[in-house]
Amino acid sequence: MKVVGIDVGGTAVKFGYFIDGVLKEKLELKTERDLIKVMKTGISSLASLDELDSIGVAVPAPIKDNFMFNAANMPWGNLNIKELLQTELAFKSIEVLNDANAACIGEYYFAEMHDSAVLITLGTGVGGGIIVDGKLVEGHNGFGGEIGHIHLDDEFGFKCGCGSVGCCETVASATGLSNIYNAISNKEVDARTIFDMAKENDADALTSVDLYSKYIARLCQTLAFIINPQVFIIGGGVSKAGMFLLDKITEEYTKLNTYKELNKLEFKLANLGNDAGIYGAYYNSLKKQPEE
Amino acid sequence: MKVVGIDVGGTAVKFGYFIDGVLKEKLELKTERDLIKVMKTGISSLASLDELDSIGVAVPAPIKDNFMFNAANMPWGNLNIKELLQTELAFKSIEVLNDANAACIGEYYFAEMHDSAVLITLGTGVGGGIIVDGKLVEGHNGFGGEIGHIHLDDEFGFKCGCGSVGCCETVASATGLSNIYNAISNKEVDARTIFDMAKENDADALTSVDLYSKYIARLCQTLAFIINPQVFIIGGGVSKAGMFLLDKITEEYTKLNTYKELNKLEFKLANLGNDAGIYGAYYNSLKKQPEE
Repeated sequence: MKVVGIDVGGTAVKFGYFIDGVLKEKLELKTERDLIKVMKTGISSLASLDELDSIGVAVPAPIKDNFMFNAANMPWGNLNIKELLQTELAFKSIEVLNDANAACIGEYYFAEMHDSAVLITLGTGVGGGIIVDGKLVEGHNGFGGEIGHIHLDDEFGFKCGCGSVGCCETVASATGLSNIYNAISNKEVDARTIFDMAKENDADALTSVDLYSKYIARLCQTLAFIINPQVFIIGGGVSKAGMFLLDKITEEYTKLNTYKELNKLEFKLANLGNDAGIYGAYYNSLKKQPEE
Repeated sequence: MKVVGIDVGGTAVKFGYFIDGVLKEKLELKTERDLIKVMKTGISSLASLDELDSIGVAVPAPIKDNFMFNAANMPWGNLNIKELLQTELAFKSIEVLNDANAACIGEYYFAEMHDSAVLITLGTGVGGGIIVDGKLVEGHNGFGGEIGHIHLDDEFGFKCGCGSVGCCETVASATGLSNIYNAISNKEVDARTIFDMAKENDADALTSVDLYSKYIARLCQTLAFIINPQVFIIGGGVSKAGMFLLDKITEEYTKLNTYKELNKLEFKLANLGNDAGIYGAYYNSLKKQPEE
């Protein structure tokens, strides 16, 4: 089986060429307004369309049954993106899903999980993907797992890009950590530097990381009371802070949580890094079943 | 098909006798420590065990695959409650589920829904049930839909029975409305009276109901970003306030929410009242398929 998995991002489009379940080659192209052209270029650099069994695509917009909604960062508006791609690429076997959901499916199948899982992607924003009994929760309008805009903060009141105040993204993304540190120290520093400083026991950085971890723990607690997954997978750029961050999150989660059964839930770091999206697009194009 | 659906509560055990899908007879007995005895009495008053096809039981504790956890109000501790009941009643075809989940299944199948739904039960506490693509989300430890302890409030800081502060139940239950009214007016009044006063335009009661509805709207928004159900079903004793409450909740929800796709989600009042649990226990005993 030969498959190309594509992960469309705001600045880059990533391509992965999978042969019999193994990622053989990767490619990254700059995102352009004419995404079809970029896709054609990327695919043809890796393989010929004739020899492909399927193409999987992940896009940064809510997707329900291959239909795309509310695509703020995409030039296509509300449409059946699968049909559009089938026509434009003159290729039939295409499956489309949301990028955060793709990352979730990627991590889930790659780690050979079998129970329910929530992926929390901590990057410039906060994304999420939810799998219950092996199946993605897309939601009625494709907003399943769109956890970035859950209301989490009434203390700082940072404004969110969505027009609200106190969304998850304003305190739990990389930007959120910078927001918190800035509110405490009145200095503008990026998330990576704040983690480095916290690891060196800088007081303001430590306070910021503790608060930051508490917001993520709160998010996990909310998810535990709704989905009660077996495992939380922490991914995205911020997760490069590694076990330092994971330990803080589990510590804060255990402090918040009064139900001992829910303290047994697992917290894991994501495995696939930036490749999670192309893996998920690939698995999804095979109807969510990984190849043997 | 002859089935008895049983809904075990803290003060009463409700029994419903269903013949070919129709609720023929109801019975309510006082909850006693020896619940098996109560069950035997209730069942034998309605039918003989010999002629029953199945028994469905709803209990006020988290259930996962018929196993009961953390049963604060039940005398049985952590155990396989299905096996226990099978032995004690000498009857094989028994299915057990959580009471809030039972109510959700009851409302869902009774209203012949087919998409995802969240039931929010506003009573002395707040319970919930979540159905995604026709299937109940039980969660890894049976805590799926246990929405009563999601953190919702940082303003009043009321203490919750679980040991936390600011849980959903402290502001969104009947007790929660009393808490809010008491904080505003310094008077202790029950929820029903507060609704009556609000309908008569009493200023403090109206302010309380508006705030109360905002907390429920916030809860729904959080659920929309995680599950994105097609419909929210509002049930429990508080839902007797009817369209007055439902209109307030949808008004506050629309104010909070910045994603227009999510403003299309439906809000409905529950249909079955106190019978939702026995209907759900009944449907669940038929492997969640209602009879034709």
